[in-house]
Parts: sequence; C-alpha cells; structure tokens
Amino acid sequence: MPVLEDVLGSIEGVDRSLELAAQKRLDSLTKPRGSLGRLEELARRYAAMTGTASPSVTRKVVFTFAGDHGVAAEGVSAFPREVTPQMVYNFLAGGAGINVLARHAGCEVVVVDMGVDHDFEGPDGLVDRKVVRGTRNMRLGPAMTREEAERCIVAGMELAAERAGEGVIFGTGDMGIANTTAASAIAAVLTGSPVRDVTGHGTGIDDEVLIHKVEVIKDAIRTNSPDPSDPVDVLSKVGGAEIAGITGLVLGAASRRVPVVADGFISTAGALVAVEMKPEAADYIFASHNSVEKGHRVMLEHMGLDPILDLGLRLGEGTGAALAISIVEAAVRVYNEMATFGDAGVSEES
Amino acid sequence: MPVLEDVLGSIEGVDRSLELAAQKRLDSLTKPRGSLGRLEELARRYAAMTGTASPSVTRKVVFTFAGDHGVAAEGVSAFPREVTPQMVYNFLAGGAGINVLARHAGCEVVVVDMGVDHDFEGPDGLVDRKVVRGTRNMRLGPAMTREEAERCIVAGMELAAERAGEGVIFGTGDMGIANTTAASAIAAVLTGSPVRDVTGHGTGIDDEVLIHKVEVIKDAIRTNSPDPSDPVDVLSKVGGAEIAGITGLVLGAASRRVPVVADGFISTAGALVAVEMKPEAADYIFASHNSVEKGHRVMLEHMGLDPILDLGLRLGEGTGAALAISIVEAAVRVYNEMATFGDAGVSEES
Repeated sequence: MPVLEDVLGSIEGVDRSLELAAQKRLDSLTKPRGSLGRLEELARRYAAMTGTASPSVTRKVVFTFAGDHGVAAEGVSAFPREVTPQMVYNFLAGGAGINVLARHAGCEVVVVDMGVDHDFEGPDGLVDRKVVRGTRNMRLGPAMTREEAERCIVAGMELAAERAGEGVIFGTGDMGIANTTAASAIAAVLTGSPVRDVTGHGTGIDDEVLIHKVEVIKDAIRTNSPDPSDPVDVLSKVGGAEIAGITGLVLGAASRRVPVVADGFISTAGALVAVEMKPEAADYIFASHNSVEKGHRVMLEHMGLDPILDLGLRLGEGTGAALAISIVEAAVRVYNEMATFGDAGVSEES
Repeated sequence: MPVLEDVLGSIEGVDRSLELAAQKRLDSLTKPRGSLGRLEELARRYAAMTGTASPSVTRKVVFTFAGDHGVAAEGVSAFPREVTPQMVYNFLAGGAGINVLARHAGCEVVVVDMGVDHDFEGPDGLVDRKVVRGTRNMRLGPAMTREEAERCIVAGMELAAERAGEGVIFGTGDMGIANTTAASAIAAVLTGSPVRDVTGHGTGIDDEVLIHKVEVIKDAIRTNSPDPSDPVDVLSKVGGAEIAGITGLVLGAASRRVPVVADGFISTAGALVAVEMKPEAADYIFASHNSVEKGHRVMLEHMGLDPILDLGLRLGEGTGAALAISIVEAAVRVYNEMATFGDAGVSEES
C-alpha cells in the first residue's frame, strides 16, 4: 500500500530552532517572561509545527470517527450497540456534546463512518468511509484483517489531506460502543502495561463488569498475540476501525504540518499507534485533556505529551479536543496580537 | 457606610435544590451520566447562582482593577513602579494579554483606576475610581485607612451593580506593581499560614529577593497587627486599592446573583476578603485557574474552590478569568443546547 508508506516517509520532526525563535518573540511581549505558562508553550509548539514565525488559526476541524466493535457482544459496555448509529444521527442533527462544544469553539465537525454496523443510506453531512460493518469480536479472533486496518488508516490520511492548509488545526474524536475495551487493549500492548492498569469504567460500567472487561481484554490479547513492535498488527487485532481512522488522520496531519489535537482515551490510542508507526508524528500532537479513564495518562506519558485541560471528561466524540483547540487558538492569538514592550512604551524587568 | 452593609445583608447562599434540578436535566442529555465532568459541575453551579433552570450567558465582562503599592519602595518586584500606569495605557490601547484573551473569549474589559499613582487625565475608556495615589508602604504603617479601603470596596460594588443583569458573568483582574506582596500578606493573615508558604516569585524575582520579600511581609504584619477576624482591617493595613475593588466587585456580584470568575493570586486575595466578610459570597465564585504563585492554592482550599484551569499562568490582569469564562460558557451551552435521549431517539444505559 504505497500511499501509507509515502505519507509515513514524508513526516519530519519539527525544527526546534523555530521554537526558540517563537519564544524570543513571546519574551518581547508586554508581560513578565514566561508568565503565560503553557499558553507560551502551545504558541511556540504551534509555530514549530507549522514551520512559520507567523502562525495563524483560520480553520478548525474536528473529525468524529464512528465504528462498531464485535467485542460489544461480551457485555463490556453500559450502553447497547445500537447507540453507535443513533449517536451518528445525533451528531448530524447537531444535538450531541461535540456539536455544542464545536459551535462554542468555532470548529466544524466532520462525521465519518469508518465501520458502523448500520446502513445509513446517505444522510446529509455523513462522510462514508466504511471499511467494515463493525469489527469482529476480538476475544475470539482478530478484530480486523491487516488490510482492513490499513484501509482505515489510509482513509484517515486522505481526510487529512483533503482539509489540510495554512492556518488549519485538526481535532480528533470518536464514537463506538465498546471502544474503550479496544483502546485499553492497544494501550496495554503498546505501553507494556498490565491490562488492569489501563482499563477503566468507560461510559459507566460497575466494578463487577470492569473485572469482566479486564478478563475479556486479557483473553483478546492471549488469543491474538498482537506484536508490540508492529503497531498495525496491534491495531488490526485488538483495535477498531474508528481508532485506525484517527491513526491515519494524525499521520496525515503530521505529514502536512497540520497541528492535531487528540481528544481523550480512544483518540489517544489512535494517536499512540501513529506515534509507534512514526515517532516524529508526536511533534504535531497536542494532548487536549486528561481523561477519567486511567489508561489515558499512561499513553500520554508514553508519548511525552502533557494534557492541556483536566476537567474530568470521559465522553469522547472530540469534546475535549474542541475545548483545547480554543486554548491553542488563544495561545496563537497571544503570540500574534499582544503589544511588545517597545511598541507599548512599557519598561522591562530591572 | 450603609451601602456596604446593605450589600452584605442582601447576599444569600444559593438554593442547593436548583443544583439538583440542573443535574437532572444534565442527566437527560445524550451522554453517559457525569461524562462531561466539571462542565456539568459548572453548569449546575451556574444555574444555582443565577437562580434559574434556564440559565444563559449573554454578556461577559472582565474588570481589571489597577493600583500602586507603597511597598514597591522596598524592592520586592522585578519591575519598576511606573509599569502600573504604563500597563493601564496598554490595556486601553488593547495590546495587553487580557485584551487578547478577552477578545478571544468575547469579553468586554473594564479598566478601573482604583489607586494608581499617576494622573491619567481621562484617556478614553478608563473608569476613574481613584481612592488613593498608591497605598502607603505597609512595612512602615497601614497601607490604607479603613475608610479608604471601604471606599474601594464600595466602588467595586457600584461597578457590579451598574453592569449586573440577566445572563451576565463577571471576571476579575488586577494590575499593580508589588501587589503579590500585598496578596501574600492577606493570604498569610486570613488563612493563618506562615508567610513563606504563601509567598512566591511574583513577576520574576530571584531567590534572594524572595527571601527579602518574605521579611518585608513579616515586618508589615508585625508593624500593623492586622486582625484576622476583621477582614477589612487586614485589607486596609496590608492590602491594596485594586484588591479592595475586587473584594467589592465579588460582593456586589453575589448580592445580584451574578456569577463571578476570580482570576489568579491577587484576585483570589480580594475574593478571600469578600468571603471572610460574607461566607455566602463563595457560592457565586468560580476559581479560574491554579496560579504558579504558591499562596494561590492555599487561599482556594481555604474557600473550598477548585480551579478550572491549570496552565502555569502568573500574569494576572484577568487573563485566567477570561479563559475560564469561556469554559463556563461552554458548560452553560451544553446544558441548554444538547439533545435529550428522548428527543434524539438514543437508547439509555442498560
């Protein structure tokens, strides 16, 4: 699959000297040095990602990838499987959490069917990239074939390419009943953590179901023996179609120097696969928030990413990404719009 | 001073049953229960503060109070004293951090001269409420008389009353060279903490100056013997004019049921004085962020407030308040705009 290899080959780490140049400008602005804390870090990273000393944010797009999971049959979620397509309709109607928060942050929402087990028959606004009608039950065998996983990744890359451009920032999002089970499996295999350390309550299962969920994930890993040194093998065997779409979006963004804000636990699993495939991709990722799902922090630390927000979110969809995109935009505006000491006639530090 | 007593007398704690009613609505929205974490808490508190099941955010106002400090003569700041009026001009010209972040969040900025040691001669946009031309050096005696402090508080109350209304949310902000010294003194006296535990590097002093700053604060407390059971005594002896303005704004907001987002270290000192004067005022305060200044967290814990953001900010001006107002607004929009399970035809938890 040459497209995938071409995209991977075109990803380069950011030029650190651009961060230094950006900090120099930040230090000339009318504030004590470093006093805007992480806003300065975000502005500096954004400048380096986009490769310019004059960065801007002119278009904000959150991609919400949807897919079903065969492992839902194991009773690992608090919600029935039909909620995946029901929520896709809700996204298209503008009534979901991501719609509200995206409107608030001035983001477009692109809803992508990567693998929902439902015939949508083309409602307005849905981007049809369906590769599977739900994954297979990973407790019994591989969730997807390698070829299916790669098709999902390429679809994500293509979506990134279609919307890349100057001043664009992406956010990731997900919808898929039982997808915290898949994300925990990916986190366990790729970070080498015990399953119980990266598995949480998802949408709201109780402690008894959590114990069962951990066993299901252990079984899935035992049955499929995913190879930790081969991230696509892991993604296909214990991942999901929407997670693979996120992986592709992150890689596509990095290859086009488009900053991408990873949402919560599911999105970070997709981003982790991307970073394992191409470590330089991490340079283009902002971590939006620290999810309640305990495996989230494990993956962020593995990638060296520090979340921007910590609001106890665990909804997914791209909700944390939308909120964090607004903070990144604020940082870029500080960089561009604040007066310098010289311009404003303000005395500097003694 | 009857106005002050009248305002204090009119402040009532929020009706907790409104929080329960708001949570009931939040639980009907198309998301797992509690999955929007602190956004749900913010929406619920906002509904209770404003006393309505249909809250809205229609006007956002950040008040940036400016004042000079006699204690600057002790060499406790990294910046010279003339920076206070210089930054006021910068606020009015729209070039400061607060201007950029307020524009981003859709907030108005009201710049108030409470006690700057400079004749502004009426530049456009400056609200003149000057009570003192800088405070006196608190190392040598009281920073203000009690009457001066009360006049500053009343000015803040009046500003709140002038702009109160349905759908209004306030933010606080400050500007005043050496005002972290005053805020640390207030924090030490009102929370009963050792001075060194609530005193930090301010705008960027080194460790040697920090040791000196701690000694200056200890001297000021020893010289003036502020009475911890009399918050206005503390405010007048070791506080500042802009801090007293913030105290008045918080009390005025609480009396009108207007939610108020406290900025960082200085603003929280002003809010703490307000809460010590009238504990019910705490019900109307959102803590915007967790400042780098270590005394900030001590005061927030004393008031039982949990900061919304943690971005390593230490600029003041209202910058953290502007960012946090946007998060509170996002929470209120979630409450108002998300579809319910019934409306969207989405299955609920099993």
